[in-house]
Amino acid sequence: MSLRNSAQLDCFTSSLSINAHGGTMAQDMTLLWGSGSCPCWRVMIALEEKGLQGYNQKLLSFDKKEHKSEEVLDINPRGQLPSFKHGHVVVNESYAACFYLESKFKVQGSKLTPDDPADQALMYQRMFEGTSFYDKLNAFIYYNWFVPEEERHDSALKRNREVLVTELKLWEGYLQKLGTNSHLAGPSFSLADVTVFPTVATLFRFGLSAERYPNLGKYYAMLTERPSIKATWPPHWLENPKGQNTLKDI
Amino acid sequence: MSLRNSAQLDCFTSSLSINAHGGTMAQDMTLLWGSGSCPCWRVMIALEEKGLQGYNQKLLSFDKKEHKSEEVLDINPRGQLPSFKHGHVVVNESYAACFYLESKFKVQGSKLTPDDPADQALMYQRMFEGTSFYDKLNAFIYYNWFVPEEERHDSALKRNREVLVTELKLWEGYLQKLGTNSHLAGPSFSLADVTVFPTVATLFRFGLSAERYPNLGKYYAMLTERPSIKATWPPHWLENPKGQNTLKDI
Repeated sequence: MSLRNSAQLDCFTSSLSINAHGGTMAQDMTLLWGSGSCPCWRVMIALEEKGLQGYNQKLLSFDKKEHKSEEVLDINPRGQLPSFKHGHVVVNESYAACFYLESKFKVQGSKLTPDDPADQALMYQRMFEGTSFYDKLNAFIYYNWFVPEEERHDSALKRNREVLVTELKLWEGYLQKLGTNSHLAGPSFSLADVTVFPTVATLFRFGLSAERYPNLGKYYAMLTERPSIKATWPPHWLENPKGQNTLKDI
Repeated sequence: MSLRNSAQLDCFTSSLSINAHGGTMAQDMTLLWGSGSCPCWRVMIALEEKGLQGYNQKLLSFDKKEHKSEEVLDINPRGQLPSFKHGHVVVNESYAACFYLESKFKVQGSKLTPDDPADQALMYQRMFEGTSFYDKLNAFIYYNWFVPEEERHDSALKRNREVLVTELKLWEGYLQKLGTNSHLAGPSFSLADVTVFPTVATLFRFGLSAERYPNLGKYYAMLTERPSIKATWPPHWLENPKGQNTLKDI
């Protein structure tokens, strides 16, 4: 068998296997993504939850600045990942892509939005608090990456750390109030989990203590068992399971 | 007539007038807000568009730190404005409140979400690009407010300015592509306008030139005529119509 045929066979086998799992071959979708990027991960979880598989996808390297390549800029003038396209529809902002997929594939795969507007309210509230959570995490763990050396201040880093601790206590409290085995916006997995779980996983990747934050720890452990999360785990975390210790004492 | 009776009469007249305009008396809603705050303004526009009037509302002062008062903290543990409550439902994040109101009052007042998922995609995309737009505007015009004196750098302010200019060019291009009299996500007013218009208005309040940014200028002028925008115009902008010149040369 030629290499070419072998590749075709792999593709065919893979397609069969996906169909056997009840998914849809989403060949009219393209996702350009980076490993460990929370925004990319959100979209990948949403795609999995909606049973959308076999989409065209390409893992790009932030280190090599591939997010500024022509390939990305063609879809996303901001030169950011994710860049996501479905047919002629372009939705690059991760929250936008999640809302779009939930609306377009409402009755396919997991139902990610509760019916009752009061339940939706909590989901929306946590989703948008989630953007603060993500920003505050980044402002601390990536401080040196975001701030040029000559503009860095210990006072700023210290403040960013305190802001993150305050934020962590809020989420720890939210989960405690909802009780054991709860998701972020109630008993069911929802868009709040799709969008905020990657932030929580990043916290633990950077050494957050599940003893100090037991409710976040339990939530994290529960969600790591979910098929959509397993299927989309950042490949470079799989290759190198030991993360950083940045948040060990926080 | 006693002062008390006069106040009661005003209230009664106001209620009659609201009903005559086809609105709903939203007496089970409470909004705590600050004048000129884009997040607060978003929620107020959404309420107007949905014909929700007569809600309990209180204008608080950021300068007096009233957003950290018990009254706010009772609804919003973050001590931020807006703080919004509908019956027992609390939705403080402005985007969350807009989504909630649109879902809860789907068939009341303006329809703020297009039916077609492809049209929705553009609306979602612009809404979430809108959060970057807002952050970039703030990082420039409120630099001295956000950054303690001893941590300020001309290089950072210069960079924030450049980032804002790049962002402005993107939006100018989006509007140009959509053509005359278009809204942010197509021919109809949508949640994209509800959430991003306050940012655009703030740009012009801070002196942005409609000659340099003609498409943003036209969009701004068109929307200032919309009843929901007129009804919710920041009161301290009305009192003092002359804004700042910060963005004059940008």
